[in-house]
Amino acid sequence: MRTIDWCDGAVEFIDQTRLPAEAVTVRAERVSELVDAIRRLAVRGAPALGVAGALGVALAHQQFRSVGGEGEPAFDAAVGSLREARPTAVNLGRMVDRVAARADEGFDAVLAEALAVRDEEIAASIAMGERGARLIAELSSSAQVRAMTVCNTGGLASVERGTALAVLQRLHELGQLGEVLALETRPLLQGARLTTWELQRMAAPHRLIVDSAGPFLIARGEVDVVVTGADRIAANGDTANKVGTFSLALAARHTGIPFVVVAPESTVDMDTPSGADIRIEDRGAAEVVSFNGSATAPSGTEALNPAFDVTPVALITALVTDRRVVRFDRGEDLGSIEAPDGRFAADPSP
Amino acid sequence: MRTIDWCDGAVEFIDQTRLPAEAVTVRAERVSELVDAIRRLAVRGAPALGVAGALGVALAHQQFRSVGGEGEPAFDAAVGSLREARPTAVNLGRMVDRVAARADEGFDAVLAEALAVRDEEIAASIAMGERGARLIAELSSSAQVRAMTVCNTGGLASVERGTALAVLQRLHELGQLGEVLALETRPLLQGARLTTWELQRMAAPHRLIVDSAGPFLIARGEVDVVVTGADRIAANGDTANKVGTFSLALAARHTGIPFVVVAPESTVDMDTPSGADIRIEDRGAAEVVSFNGSATAPSGTEALNPAFDVTPVALITALVTDRRVVRFDRGEDLGSIEAPDGRFAADPSP
Repeated sequence: MRTIDWCDGAVEFIDQTRLPAEAVTVRAERVSELVDAIRRLAVRGAPALGVAGALGVALAHQQFRSVGGEGEPAFDAAVGSLREARPTAVNLGRMVDRVAARADEGFDAVLAEALAVRDEEIAASIAMGERGARLIAELSSSAQVRAMTVCNTGGLASVERGTALAVLQRLHELGQLGEVLALETRPLLQGARLTTWELQRMAAPHRLIVDSAGPFLIARGEVDVVVTGADRIAANGDTANKVGTFSLALAARHTGIPFVVVAPESTVDMDTPSGADIRIEDRGAAEVVSFNGSATAPSGTEALNPAFDVTPVALITALVTDRRVVRFDRGEDLGSIEAPDGRFAADPSP
Repeated sequence: MRTIDWCDGAVEFIDQTRLPAEAVTVRAERVSELVDAIRRLAVRGAPALGVAGALGVALAHQQFRSVGGEGEPAFDAAVGSLREARPTAVNLGRMVDRVAARADEGFDAVLAEALAVRDEEIAASIAMGERGARLIAELSSSAQVRAMTVCNTGGLASVERGTALAVLQRLHELGQLGEVLALETRPLLQGARLTTWELQRMAAPHRLIVDSAGPFLIARGEVDVVVTGADRIAANGDTANKVGTFSLALAARHTGIPFVVVAPESTVDMDTPSGADIRIEDRGAAEVVSFNGSATAPSGTEALNPAFDVTPVALITALVTDRRVVRFDRGEDLGSIEAPDGRFAADPSP
């Protein structure tokens, strides 16, 4: 199952807002439809956003720079709207820019670049799953790992397999996964709606919890490792991820269990010095004061709604990417450990 | 406004499950109706549960030990059902037993004891509010305190004013409250539904947040003090409270802001040595896998649903009760600081 793909001149994607009730594939033939889908989180997850941006540029090229199209200014505006559709995930802007740089070479070159982005994400998921499973086996004394995770970092957040959930899927394939405790992930319930749906499909044992139970269940000894994704990783290793991640990192440190971040190399942003420099999206009150269209708070209630939080590198045991493992707990950092050029598939050594 | 009271031979209470949409007063004339209301959280909050238990014993006496009643075995069974309606809050069982001890003296003695429990809770709320506001003014460098709280600890959780929210109400009356950040408190949303409703009624500035945003907003410097209630305080100071409390205590310590627990003396349970000995209620999957009657997770999803968590005393700055302030941060403990016999109202010295 691919979450997003190019299909006969359009971008097709699973509308994640309609899961788990129904798995509906939507076809976007215009850039504005794709931007809208990104904004309303029908497509979400940092790697999937990167692929959506890449394929979106191909869509923009076809729509505006083909014979009879509105031309370069309209194309540039469309590319800008893709880049700005979500502010926190670094992949989106980066992949948009990478594909847009081929614009003058014509549609075929643009589409080829966009499909390369897609294929690299698939290869990256396989590599992260393999490396991460190996690391966790090394870090954990348990033969049947009990893992906790937040948000959705599976195939739905990527193209296939995902990031943190790719690691748990790989552990499950190896017979080393005891259980996953999945945070429901308010306000949009990506954990409840999407992660449980993916875990059910892979027949991995799991239970759902409310977000605030995570730190306590860690402290009570019910978890061997916390494994999360990342939306942006600063140069010093500070990591922005779904709000709630920081609380799990605090509890993991308090309890003495490892806290592992899994994200493609493209999530690392060496231009952002530290977590304090990461812009955190506030998604407004509506998501917090209502649910499924019915109010949960008195009318007029104001809310603060940071979609992400920042986990300081001091609380992170290790980062697993598609190219390397950085052991922050051993004093390694993103600069001192160079990412090898080769992909994991070509270079399976540790 | 009183949350619960004795009224013309019945227990009347606000049905908290129907807030904030409507403020409905329910009249229980039979013990089974009151037990049902406690179980389905129509009456909730440790102090309110104590008063409900006390008034419930009076109801049981009237129902079973009056002329023509079913007699003592039925009364004992009713008292037992009240005591067991919720397992974690110590007040419920304690107040049930206190009033039931007067059973042989007749209905008037039983009712007088139950009303004394009610009146003591009201006096305790006033005392906690006063002491807590004074402590926070001492602990905080800010003239306009920005406080974070979880669950509902206001008049709705008590009879009037409450515990942690009584402190915030008092700060507001003194012109010292900058803002309250209220956690929505999944799964039952007591913060979103009840605390915002009370803060709105007292015209105190506030914003609602999802639970997992609490630790991050503390770390980002948006909070001067965390103030919570308690459901049971062990002899060593470890405190059971609404799940999510522990994560705020971790973040408060990480950030260096005070974490203050506010609870009546009746919440202290010297028979429970430490947090590890506190039985934590698991309320089952239904609250987690659905919301307002619609499913949030695929059917068949299992859940773990601890209603409370335990905050170790090492993370608690101070406990404010109706009789004393215990500064855990200064090495004081529950045994070394005796609760004075006098009530706050009679003894306003620090």
